[in-house]
Amino acid sequence: MTTDGGREKPGDVVIGVDIGGTNSVVGFVNEAGTLLLHGRFPTMAHRSAGEFVPRLSEVIGELKQELPAGSRVRAIVIASPAANARNGTVDNPANFKWGRVDLVGMMKKTFDVPISIMNDSDAALLGETRYGVAQGLTNVLLITLGTGLGAGIMMDGRLVQGAHGAAGEFGHMTIIPGGRQCACGRRGCVESYVSASGICRTTFELLEQSREESSLRDLSFETLTAEKVHQCAVKGDPIAKAALEETGKSLGMMLANIVAAFDPEAIVLCGGLVNAGELLIAPARKAFESNVLERYRSTVSILVSRLNNGQAAILGASCQVLDTLYDNSYIKETQP
Amino acid sequence: MTTDGGREKPGDVVIGVDIGGTNSVVGFVNEAGTLLLHGRFPTMAHRSAGEFVPRLSEVIGELKQELPAGSRVRAIVIASPAANARNGTVDNPANFKWGRVDLVGMMKKTFDVPISIMNDSDAALLGETRYGVAQGLTNVLLITLGTGLGAGIMMDGRLVQGAHGAAGEFGHMTIIPGGRQCACGRRGCVESYVSASGICRTTFELLEQSREESSLRDLSFETLTAEKVHQCAVKGDPIAKAALEETGKSLGMMLANIVAAFDPEAIVLCGGLVNAGELLIAPARKAFESNVLERYRSTVSILVSRLNNGQAAILGASCQVLDTLYDNSYIKETQP
Repeated sequence: MTTDGGREKPGDVVIGVDIGGTNSVVGFVNEAGTLLLHGRFPTMAHRSAGEFVPRLSEVIGELKQELPAGSRVRAIVIASPAANARNGTVDNPANFKWGRVDLVGMMKKTFDVPISIMNDSDAALLGETRYGVAQGLTNVLLITLGTGLGAGIMMDGRLVQGAHGAAGEFGHMTIIPGGRQCACGRRGCVESYVSASGICRTTFELLEQSREESSLRDLSFETLTAEKVHQCAVKGDPIAKAALEETGKSLGMMLANIVAAFDPEAIVLCGGLVNAGELLIAPARKAFESNVLERYRSTVSILVSRLNNGQAAILGASCQVLDTLYDNSYIKETQP
Repeated sequence: MTTDGGREKPGDVVIGVDIGGTNSVVGFVNEAGTLLLHGRFPTMAHRSAGEFVPRLSEVIGELKQELPAGSRVRAIVIASPAANARNGTVDNPANFKWGRVDLVGMMKKTFDVPISIMNDSDAALLGETRYGVAQGLTNVLLITLGTGLGAGIMMDGRLVQGAHGAAGEFGHMTIIPGGRQCACGRRGCVESYVSASGICRTTFELLEQSREESSLRDLSFETLTAEKVHQCAVKGDPIAKAALEETGKSLGMMLANIVAAFDPEAIVLCGGLVNAGELLIAPARKAFESNVLERYRSTVSILVSRLNNGQAAILGASCQVLDTLYDNSYIKETQP
């Protein structure tokens, strides 16, 4: 990522927005691809989109005050779950109480610039291949491990979005036939094992199966969170550690399956769950190695994102807009 | 497929070859994409490639005699399992005793024309989208159900081959964790359930589980074939019918998983097993419907190839070469 390329033309910026299940992030990116300013606010996904938009507009307005005089906002690009790039809508994102909303239309009432929307995982994938751990790679899968399990797919340098923009639903591939009931209504989906709620369910399964002491025995199903499991695991709680290990194992099995489908050179893991670090990632790598078809064993790297939460998506979304606004080679040349 | 476009310029042909596990097919295709001549011979995959090449060359030579005088062979393109298009080799195809061979190099000793090689499933997919049941579609998966389970992937009109040409190994995605041992050494792979040998294994499982009478009880594991199971099923044998139904069920479950990964508009099923028709396909569709994520239920068509065995691959491989030899719009314009 460049750190000063934009100062020459401080006037031109693209605003990137990453809408997350918990927090949303706004970033102002200059034409060199530098993140100049950013702000964060709670999404409050349990409320309506009609309440969200004014709060987002307010944060954008506040950040705008900090831009040097003469600055010009060229475009706004929003990275959102369940984004429909074709018609500018957000279509029933899981874990949101939004339903289907014309987010671009709503934003246009306040902002008189081109506004576009794209899938958050696709945006993060572009960010990772341009500025992150997958820099320069062209066959990459990105897995977002958070409330749910999202994914982005790049093959031959192009995003693969499927016939209706719905490719990459790896969370709803079946991993255990007849297994846990998933939020989608089916059984045995990857997401019901490998996600924040999946970790909690595995914790409860282990509390039931084992007789080992654990501070997690004091928590109800409703109060348990993946973060608490992680905190307890760090302190050495055996059930918490085992829950992360089991989750990693399921993750590794899923990765082996999608590698057989896509033959990528790398998989980037990101999202809240990767904060658990090696407690989750080490068993995932181990399960991947022992489950993957021999021919792929040495050809694919499992990478963990090092960009801050939301930053990959903001940079990725912005660079796609910048590529169309300016000559994309310009950005590439200014890379350090 | 055009049927007469080529007569105007009878002199220019491309030779397409489809190497199958049992039989290989050679076809002469004119520049309008019409299959003018074709011949078939047993592959004898249990013998070496050094023995195969002279037999292939002989069939090509014989067909060449039938071309009108003044004809000119412009190129040879070979569709093969485990093809490595980049260096012209065939790399250890499963169920072949070939090892890794420089097939293009071997053919060049006899034929002084450009020779190329491509994955057989990719070739069949191109054939199906140009001339077959998926004509005009651009987001399509093709599944070849034969000795093994092969696949081709087209997204946004382009073949997706992965970082090392090894995408589409759907047969080696895990469907039953800890399940049947697969030829690849792992357990629970789709291919150990959904393939010719998978049908035979399921038949034996059912013979063991049930007490129902069946003519299949007279056959040993070594003498049982998928074709015999099909023949018995047609005659109403309950075990044979159940074996095809179970196989279809596993196929449908796999289709639900790969649809979640790729979001295609269609899946084309081809290969020897689809000869079982609705005995296999109806349960596959049913299992697909009940396993697929709601959002895909009405967006994807499961189609069965209607092109003869090998024809799709020969036409697909040839049309890719024709597209580079001639203006590809020419071929499109001559379509009926």
